[in-house]
Formats: sequence, C-alpha cells, structure tokens
Amino acid sequence: MTYCVAMRLDTGLVFLSDTRTNAGVDHVSTFRKMLVFERTGERVLVLLSAGNLAVTQAVRQHIVEARDTDTIWNAKTLTDVARVVGNAIREVYARDAKALETFGVDFNCSFILGGQIAGQPSRLFQLYSAGNFIEASSVNPYFQIGESKYGKPIIDRLVTPSTSLDDGAKCALISMDSTLRSNVSVGLPLDLLVYEENSLRVTRFASLTDDNAYYKMIHDTWGARLRQVFAELPEPQWAASAPGASAASLPPLASPPDEMPGAGDPVSVQSLAQDFGGGAPG
Amino acid sequence: MTYCVAMRLDTGLVFLSDTRTNAGVDHVSTFRKMLVFERTGERVLVLLSAGNLAVTQAVRQHIVEARDTDTIWNAKTLTDVARVVGNAIREVYARDAKALETFGVDFNCSFILGGQIAGQPSRLFQLYSAGNFIEASSVNPYFQIGESKYGKPIIDRLVTPSTSLDDGAKCALISMDSTLRSNVSVGLPLDLLVYEENSLRVTRFASLTDDNAYYKMIHDTWGARLRQVFAELPEPQWAASAPGASAASLPPLASPPDEMPGAGDPVSVQSLAQDFGGGAPG
Repeated sequence: MTYCVAMRLDTGLVFLSDTRTNAGVDHVSTFRKMLVFERTGERVLVLLSAGNLAVTQAVRQHIVEARDTDTIWNAKTLTDVARVVGNAIREVYARDAKALETFGVDFNCSFILGGQIAGQPSRLFQLYSAGNFIEASSVNPYFQIGESKYGKPIIDRLVTPSTSLDDGAKCALISMDSTLRSNVSVGLPLDLLVYEENSLRVTRFASLTDDNAYYKMIHDTWGARLRQVFAELPEPQWAASAPGASAASLPPLASPPDEMPGAGDPVSVQSLAQDFGGGAPG
Repeated sequence: MTYCVAMRLDTGLVFLSDTRTNAGVDHVSTFRKMLVFERTGERVLVLLSAGNLAVTQAVRQHIVEARDTDTIWNAKTLTDVARVVGNAIREVYARDAKALETFGVDFNCSFILGGQIAGQPSRLFQLYSAGNFIEASSVNPYFQIGESKYGKPIIDRLVTPSTSLDDGAKCALISMDSTLRSNVSVGLPLDLLVYEENSLRVTRFASLTDDNAYYKMIHDTWGARLRQVFAELPEPQWAASAPGASAASLPPLASPPDEMPGAGDPVSVQSLAQDFGGGAPG
C-alpha cells in the first residue's frame, strides 16, 4: 500500500518513501512515490504520494504538465502550491472518478507536500482525496501516509521540532523498517531526501536498496538492541493476593452453570507485585 | 476501538486487553474486553473481544446463557469451543444484523479465544464476524484484534513459541503501551492474564491501572531506553557522489518548464556514504 513519512524540523525537512505498489498479491511492482521540483536557489518542493497508483500518477502528471495561470512553479507561497496540488486532485477526480466507480474502485489518494520558496520558511502539508489539506506545526511536526500505524509509535517517542535532520532521517528509517517487517505491501528500495533549511536546492538524497550499508546497519542493529533492552527490563513478579482481595484484582469470571458463582479460591490467584526485581544480566 | 493480544507459547498462554470503548470522541467509556471461563481442574477458556460493543456483549451473553446441547462447558475440544463461539456470533447476526443495517451500523466483531481442556494441549483461535476462525501455530504464535498495527512490530521482533510466559507478558505490555501512546481509542485499565500450561485454573491475573508500579516501569523505562539506543546508533554520513554518478543516485526530479532538463549540478547532491562513524557517546 505504501508508506511515506515527512518531518518539519527546525533545521529543515526529512522525506522518506517506499516504492512498492500492488494490485493484489500476485501483482506487485516498483514505482517511486517521491517527486522533487527544484528551481535551484528559488524553490524546492517534494511531493510524496499514496493510494491508487493510477490516480496519484495522474495527479502528478497534471501538475508537471500544467501551463495554467497557477502552477507549482509560479505559486507565490507554499499554501498556494498546496492549492495547486489540491486543484490537480480535483481535476483528476472530475475526469476519472465516475469511470472508476463503474469498476468499483475508490478514488483514493493522499499526498505529503513539503518544501521551501526563497524568502519564506519551509513548510509541510498533507493533502486528501477531496483536494483539501492540513499543515504541520511544532505540535504536530510530521505526517505519514499509507500504512502509517506500524511506524507511528517510534516517531511519537522520539521526534520533536528540535530533532536534528540526521536524527530525523535515522528515526524515519527505523519507522520504515518496522513497517517493512510487518506489512508486505511496503517494500524497498526507499527514497530518502533530507532538505537543509535555506539551501533552496537538494543537497542530500539516497535511494536505499537492501545492500546499502547504512540501511542494513539500522535494520540489523535496531532489532538487536531492542532485544537487549527488552532482556534488561525487569521481569514481572507474581505475588499471592491478600486475603479478602478485592474483586477488582480478580479476572472477569464466568462460572459453569452447575457451580455456585465464585466457587473457585480467589486468594490463590496471583497478581502483579508492586515491587519487582532487576532485569536479566545485561 | 480496543486492542487485545494473545500468545500461544510453549509453556502456556498470555492474554492482554484494554478497556476503552467509544461511540465517538464525546462518548468514551470503560468496558472489559476479557471474559474467563473456568471449571477448576477441567478447563480454562479466555475470550477477548473487539468491534461493536453491543454485538460483542450480545455474543458473550449468548454463550454464558446457553443451555443448548453444545455449550462452552461441555464442548469436547477447543475446536468445538471455537464452533460454539462461532455459532453464537451467527445467532446474534441472525437476530440483530438487519436492524443494525437500518441504522447504517456494520455487524463488526472479532474475538480471540484461547485456553485448555484437561488432557489436551492449550490452543489459541481468532474468530471473525462470519463466525469462522483460524488457529495459531508455532509459525504464527500470536493474534491481535482491534487497533493491532501500532503494536505489531515489537511482537514480530521479539516473540517466538519458546519465549517465556513472563517475557510474553512483558512484550504484550510494551505492545499495548505503544498502542496507547498513538491511538486514543485504546485505554487503561488493562486486563493481563497469564495461563500456565496444564494448570487448568487461573493462577496469574492483574488489572493494571496507571498507578501500577510494574506498568509504570514499562511505560517509563522502555521509552527512555529506546531513546538511549537511538542516540547510540551511528548517524548517517553524507558524501559527494562520484563524477558521472548514476541516475539511480539522484532524486526523481521535475524541472521547471523554462529550464533544460537536468540543468542542476547532479554531482553536488550528496548521498549516504557506505561507511559511517560511531554513534553518540553512550
């Protein structure tokens, strides 16, 4: 299904996307979800896409080909750029949605748009199938589209606007790695773009295959270190409940119809002790 | 929405469920998702539920009240027990689905059923709205229902059938903690039941509120240790691409219509170096 994530940090933007697409498990292909628009020294815009591939490609193509009054190249602000993308979504909807419906296919697309125009701060948006959008802020400094849930907890734990670009990239890769392990519709290679605030050009980009040494290190090391941390966490200690233990410490029991309710011995059910020992030897 | 997880390990079973239910964000309540059936010395069965609360409660009530030929108390094997639960789901569907449809409500329910009958090994099943089910095995030793995606990667990384019961419980709590942080429809208190193989009674159960010392330790320590591991991972190193760098190492660029394609300087885009330094000081 895709997984794309982008972060708006104090020192710039981080973008990471996968390349797997599928129309069922026997029809899996590789298509890039990232498109970069650069007019060196004036603007850098990055568009990540998820959803129905034909829909998202049509939207991207509409933007690239546009010769209207308002294009991605002459929009004055990032909000205007977001509106250009939103309008492209609506144009493609007007053209294709009915035909898709005939075949029982949803008009399903979502985008992340981020970047910077000279003289303005960098900004980050998420756009919906309806062509409208929301913007990232310091209290919500990242967006995800596609299979977002697997990789969300680690970002929630680690990323704030003051996170460095390299740490943001590291965290995005871990988030992607967790997703790759748990969902087959997301796959390598990955596109990673790190945008440095005010550079107004792409200075850092990598297309990561499974033999990229850094990605392999993340893949192998993170899991190994997690197992080590896990082993070091204290084990639960089970202790007998005190006599007259309250009902709240007993499991929600249903008894056989031929027995009196609560015929078992509640005192022998152990509960989690409030004190617990150390973990396994480190 | 709920999150429940259960594992079938070599030495027994682990069950963990939350208690939050909601009919929209202004209608949040606490209901237990776990129900335990025990005939001491003969059978212990644990049922976890997710989905529409009225549907799942109706199914549970049907099972508890049953005086038919085939009940949860006289079923001969765990497969027979699963069929009893499946039939209860179908009875409730027959009774309620049409009325629900009138109000645009899906007949949505899923269950995890696990336990042991004397003389047989413990087993674990997942049941669907259609009343059919699948069984856990050594290659798939756990099931999740409800908001399962957030908490899946950690279980995939850590749990195998040879995992101890205490480690299984620890991992389930971490999985739940990740879910709680990232989704407001899952909430405390939690019901944790650890079933020891061949005990044929409930020996270990805890209802965990946010002031339970062990759960607080998991909640605080896991996140802190993750941040530490993260800081210790090497930072990415960015290095200039070699002259004549292949197109695969460049971002997927779209150029402004008034410029020649590839007008930028590809050599100045840095990529991830294959060698990288050590991490932050531990």
